[in-house]
Amino acid sequence: MIVCTTLDLSAEMRQKIAKETQVPVVQRTINELSRREKNAVEILITYGNFDDAVTVEELRQLPGLKWIHVLSSGTEQLPITPIKDKNILVTSSKGIHAIPISEYVIFAVLYFAKHIPQFIKLQEQKSWSYTAGMSEVYGKTLGVLGTGVIGLEIARKARALGMRVIGVNRSGRHMVGFDEVHRVQQLKEIVPCCDYICSALPSTDETRNLIDKNIIQLMKDQVIFINVGRGDVIVEEHLLEALRTGKIGGAALDVFKSEPLEVQHPFWRMKNVLITPHASARTNMYMFRALQMFLENFRYYQQNALQFMVNKVDFH
Amino acid sequence: MIVCTTLDLSAEMRQKIAKETQVPVVQRTINELSRREKNAVEILITYGNFDDAVTVEELRQLPGLKWIHVLSSGTEQLPITPIKDKNILVTSSKGIHAIPISEYVIFAVLYFAKHIPQFIKLQEQKSWSYTAGMSEVYGKTLGVLGTGVIGLEIARKARALGMRVIGVNRSGRHMVGFDEVHRVQQLKEIVPCCDYICSALPSTDETRNLIDKNIIQLMKDQVIFINVGRGDVIVEEHLLEALRTGKIGGAALDVFKSEPLEVQHPFWRMKNVLITPHASARTNMYMFRALQMFLENFRYYQQNALQFMVNKVDFH
Repeated sequence: MIVCTTLDLSAEMRQKIAKETQVPVVQRTINELSRREKNAVEILITYGNFDDAVTVEELRQLPGLKWIHVLSSGTEQLPITPIKDKNILVTSSKGIHAIPISEYVIFAVLYFAKHIPQFIKLQEQKSWSYTAGMSEVYGKTLGVLGTGVIGLEIARKARALGMRVIGVNRSGRHMVGFDEVHRVQQLKEIVPCCDYICSALPSTDETRNLIDKNIIQLMKDQVIFINVGRGDVIVEEHLLEALRTGKIGGAALDVFKSEPLEVQHPFWRMKNVLITPHASARTNMYMFRALQMFLENFRYYQQNALQFMVNKVDFH
Repeated sequence: MIVCTTLDLSAEMRQKIAKETQVPVVQRTINELSRREKNAVEILITYGNFDDAVTVEELRQLPGLKWIHVLSSGTEQLPITPIKDKNILVTSSKGIHAIPISEYVIFAVLYFAKHIPQFIKLQEQKSWSYTAGMSEVYGKTLGVLGTGVIGLEIARKARALGMRVIGVNRSGRHMVGFDEVHRVQQLKEIVPCCDYICSALPSTDETRNLIDKNIIQLMKDQVIFINVGRGDVIVEEHLLEALRTGKIGGAALDVFKSEPLEVQHPFWRMKNVLITPHASARTNMYMFRALQMFLENFRYYQQNALQFMVNKVDFH
């Protein structure tokens, strides 16, 4: 039995896994493994998406594979058929994004509330001027689209700042941690109340293009929009237009319809847009937390107490 | 009886005062008042400092003055002798700075934690790059110098982000809201533990030049320094030197030894310094809250129930 990791871990992290699991750890892509190693791999640690996708062909090379731990939250890019056929256990790192992403959202809300882009410009001009002013988030309303682990942590922190937080999800059932929760179908009635709107939604058939010019039109003038979910939840051309007219006063965008954002994209040059490269979850704590989650699950795996493992993915 | 305000209030605010007090409101400097008005002024609303200072000469022109409400927190620039001689009641607007200033401090902590200055630079270069990374404030330590209303509100919000908050004050006695509180004499032992240090200290004989190169030397490398108290609490030349060497990794400075900050000052050009012009408390809510405090006090003043008035200043 060996553990294979397809991603670059620090030597320290590899040693930690080997020490705590008492199982040898090899770090390379599946294709680079020797025949002997391929036969011995029982556990695979991988991102399972984007550059690091695991293919059907690769899975076929691992006859003894029993468990895949994915270091990301989503598992939509894993090849479902062979996983189901071979009854491979899959666990994700869902939940570890809540702290870093919620910190980013609180930062973004305050960045625009305090008119920091204007103050940075004044500083470049060496101008001591009160013209930019500052506003407060206290008493203001934040709409959070998506009330999962991330949305909830955003809400908790925003409320500690004295904000009113309205959650939007599929069911609209009330959740502790939000002032109100409404169904996504009521989005039209929610957005006019919000001073700040943050999307933490995944990309699904229901969420894609959810926010278009019709919804934007109903928003408060100069609303601030923050996206930490997926880029295609909003129609980018409509967002762009609203940012140009000032209907949307500012936006902090960590995700885009197409990533990396192409160099010609007008977002790059807009003064009221802050661009970060899908970085809000990727802090220096990310790998540590993801591996911590793996190691906790490993303990149950080893004892064959699979029922206690967390974040098991059900490919129904 | 009339109320005189020496500062520019909106027509809406003047009307609000007149309506709620049922007393005429005049808005001009004391020197500009007519003789009849000077005799009738019983209540004065003023900043009482900087450009708006009230002089001994001016006070002498108001024989019927009984109460000065100061719209700032400090009252150090009011002429004490005539106030004491004539037994004039003075109230301040202490406490109204806690919300806006604490929001600014939380912003500043996150701004540097998320490496936003680096991401802004990358955006200017249209560069989608992970090199800047982001860190987290969760689990990090914030030292707060000054544990008054403002320091306490900073602590409350920082702890909601999962930070450990160490307060520093004169007595060192424990206060709810902080993880630890220490005496200012122990500053040398506190600063090596802090990832972020925020001063909310006033300028007094005890605090002036409190933070010098000897204290800075003991700080963690790349510590973040935030100043929302008074500029002369830190020796500016030593702060400058530490920012140049990177010993202090970044600073958000809202206050300076000399304000406005002169155009030649090297702070303006430093990439790791964010300058705001003593603006963190001056939000669009400031005047509203200060007048609210005045109006609440007015109710007790009118009923001659002075013992219930808040923020009475004792010029012992």
